[in-house]
Amino acid sequence: MYEDFRYTLVLAALVLTGCVRPQESSSPDGPLIIDGGTVVIMDEAGTILEGGAVLVESDRIAALLEPGAPRPDGATVIDATGHVVIPGLVNTHGHAAMSLLRGLADDMPLLTWLNDHIFPAEAALVAPDFVYWGTLLSSVEMLKGGTTTFADMYYFRDDMAQATVDAGIRAVTGPHVIGFPTPDYASPEESLADAAEFMERYQDHPTVVPAVAAHALYTTPLHAVEAAFRLAERYDAPFQIHAVEDPSENVTARELTGMGVIEALDSIGALRPGTVLAHSIYLSDEDIERIAASGAGIAHNPQSNMKLGVARAAPVAAALAAGIPVGLGTDGPASNNDLDMFDEMDAAAKVQKFMLGDPAALPAETVFRLATMGGARVLNLHHEIGSLEPGKRADIVLVDVRRPGLTPLYRVYSHLVYAARGSDVSTVIVNGRVVVRDREILTVDQDEVMERARGFGDRVREVMEDIAAARTADGTQAERQ
Amino acid sequence: MYEDFRYTLVLAALVLTGCVRPQESSSPDGPLIIDGGTVVIMDEAGTILEGGAVLVESDRIAALLEPGAPRPDGATVIDATGHVVIPGLVNTHGHAAMSLLRGLADDMPLLTWLNDHIFPAEAALVAPDFVYWGTLLSSVEMLKGGTTTFADMYYFRDDMAQATVDAGIRAVTGPHVIGFPTPDYASPEESLADAAEFMERYQDHPTVVPAVAAHALYTTPLHAVEAAFRLAERYDAPFQIHAVEDPSENVTARELTGMGVIEALDSIGALRPGTVLAHSIYLSDEDIERIAASGAGIAHNPQSNMKLGVARAAPVAAALAAGIPVGLGTDGPASNNDLDMFDEMDAAAKVQKFMLGDPAALPAETVFRLATMGGARVLNLHHEIGSLEPGKRADIVLVDVRRPGLTPLYRVYSHLVYAARGSDVSTVIVNGRVVVRDREILTVDQDEVMERARGFGDRVREVMEDIAAARTADGTQAERQ
Repeated sequence: MYEDFRYTLVLAALVLTGCVRPQESSSPDGPLIIDGGTVVIMDEAGTILEGGAVLVESDRIAALLEPGAPRPDGATVIDATGHVVIPGLVNTHGHAAMSLLRGLADDMPLLTWLNDHIFPAEAALVAPDFVYWGTLLSSVEMLKGGTTTFADMYYFRDDMAQATVDAGIRAVTGPHVIGFPTPDYASPEESLADAAEFMERYQDHPTVVPAVAAHALYTTPLHAVEAAFRLAERYDAPFQIHAVEDPSENVTARELTGMGVIEALDSIGALRPGTVLAHSIYLSDEDIERIAASGAGIAHNPQSNMKLGVARAAPVAAALAAGIPVGLGTDGPASNNDLDMFDEMDAAAKVQKFMLGDPAALPAETVFRLATMGGARVLNLHHEIGSLEPGKRADIVLVDVRRPGLTPLYRVYSHLVYAARGSDVSTVIVNGRVVVRDREILTVDQDEVMERARGFGDRVREVMEDIAAARTADGTQAERQ
Repeated sequence: MYEDFRYTLVLAALVLTGCVRPQESSSPDGPLIIDGGTVVIMDEAGTILEGGAVLVESDRIAALLEPGAPRPDGATVIDATGHVVIPGLVNTHGHAAMSLLRGLADDMPLLTWLNDHIFPAEAALVAPDFVYWGTLLSSVEMLKGGTTTFADMYYFRDDMAQATVDAGIRAVTGPHVIGFPTPDYASPEESLADAAEFMERYQDHPTVVPAVAAHALYTTPLHAVEAAFRLAERYDAPFQIHAVEDPSENVTARELTGMGVIEALDSIGALRPGTVLAHSIYLSDEDIERIAASGAGIAHNPQSNMKLGVARAAPVAAALAAGIPVGLGTDGPASNNDLDMFDEMDAAAKVQKFMLGDPAALPAETVFRLATMGGARVLNLHHEIGSLEPGKRADIVLVDVRRPGLTPLYRVYSHLVYAARGSDVSTVIVNGRVVVRDREILTVDQDEVMERARGFGDRVREVMEDIAAARTADGTQAERQ
């Protein structure tokens, strides 16, 4: 309580001192026109409007205008000459606050990484302020790299959501359950006890999409997963869960439930549109059929899985052929180690070709669709985001293609997937609000965010040194005995 | 002849108008100090000098200075606060001028890509001006991304070399043979006839390292490969050849020579230090032993190979264990589709972990070594470049780590390999000369280079449309008959 109160004071102080700017400051008053770029609409037909314009009114895309069509008077104009205008990228899976642990440890087996590095650091440090500043840091990185929506699983839901609101990014996040005590709750039951309050509070929020997450079947009892899912169902909200990232998960699930992971989730009704199956690497043909029949989607995280030495990638080509919604995700920044969705598109295309020995697998346009409409569909938000069609939320990204590495430009999708990177993004609009302009974040003070992040870095280093010292002392004592 | 003459006039005009600036303009007059950064020396011990300085005198690294040590008076100071100072990255394999064909076609089998797209475009357009401007475009991209040395195989050696001199990048390039007519020569014999002139001309050049290339054993008769190698041997120059990128290459080599690719190269003595075996994917254990015994090196191009659906990566972990020098390469920008060596490091680490199912395979420091000292060793230039040790050529790169995605920083190698990208490079020094400063190229007019590139883009589009129209006409005619 004391912590929370103190934290609210800090936040208030930040707003007062201008470190965190109130939301209104960077919104234009009237309509906004993004004019003169190559507009990648991402409609069903894959239309590209060369030299067209996107008209934004309030938080929505009002119209697409042909090059010669008259422009309404009085609109604020963003000149998109030399830019490709794309729907904001959708990152379907991650743990944003872990940016504060990025690069702490790499190049080791998952359990060593978790038990010797990540878990001890998290146990010592994860608290509301850690989550707030870590999420803010990641939100800035994502926005500046063209990601306008991300789905997240982590602790301290309120602080996490507040960080995304302050950054001005769209976030799919909320209550989270796992079968052991976490920094925020002692049990899944406790986590769920006040979860409805969060879901209610954000029901009509312009950018926070309340969602429920259960960690995984190998960490969380099926009844707790089911309770979490029921909550999501009650609010027609997305439901996130890690699924078959490792073959052992099916073995464990069978021991615990008599069923494989996907079958067990199906048995409690948890497969339905808006259910996000993160990773989904070890899927049988039967699993693919089951998911396809349900409307559930897959969050494919190629780089995280490669880095952890998972010798397979999610069967994306097969899943798409079966009609399963597939999106891309970076996973946590400590597993990847970046939040650049352009990088993720490139890797998604290449690892599928590599795995299948087929250069035609996942062509550029398909991959770009995964990162936009595909992700929107996975999150069950495809009526609101994922394309630049009129009526949708105005989540729009301008990619500057005027640099040597993107010149000449023959095919837009090829450059977006294989040659562009997050640093080519110049302007970002979320929900009609300009949040990045000329590569600068407008919503928060980036220097302040980085200074806070460095402060947490110092604390992480101290904690890890203490742990190492304690280990050495234990070792010395053990030797003496 | 007329073409060449006209071309020389164009070049002279560009120098006069300031589009191509003479080499002296961006060199400091006296000593240069890069001070206050995290200096990654890349010596044998992997020393990192926190807050130290690199002293450059003329074209060489004169000394490394500890944080508290006195700095010489009168030196030009480059403030490296907030930067990691690294040896210039070494790109061991590519075809730089193909940047003008980047993204023309992707996501298809190699032979379709070559026969239907790349070869027709090259046949119509590859000429001295195409090679000059394409190489200049790529050189700018590479320099701005921290690559200070690259090895190249392409046509019109003189124009290619001149572009690298104008850009101010170090290049390993020169005569090239292949068993069929090319835009510059009718045969390998013709190509070799005036090759010695090139080798002589660049013997003591500060940045052009004359080298000889033979395309591959499946395209070039063994006697022509041998003749090319003898030329390289005569000048103690690097020798480049594509080797076992595809399993069919060994089959073809056996039909033609009775030996596999590596054995055939060994039979003519072509395996020795400075021989660059590009790709080297399908190596047997015997091949690895043979290469290890010879001192020849491997240019590993993970992203190009993944994109082309080659279902294996070069056995880098095994090659390193055997003591083979291994470097990284981007391959041509039309195959990758970028020239970002940071991206290549990330992919090299991840694809090896993925292929071996081992997260500990190719850890970050090992991969960073491949991109610097490893590449230098492959090119037999490790006494001159690849590390920041005193006495070596001053090829130095400053990586700006002051952005959200690189904050906090726990381990330098992790960030360099997994989180940084070419766009984080702020300053680049080649051979003691500052060629990139605050992310701007100083040696050439980037706008002019891009305008030329767009012009070639227009010509490529026209040629491809003509070819498509001719194909349709052929088809219609065939139907009528």
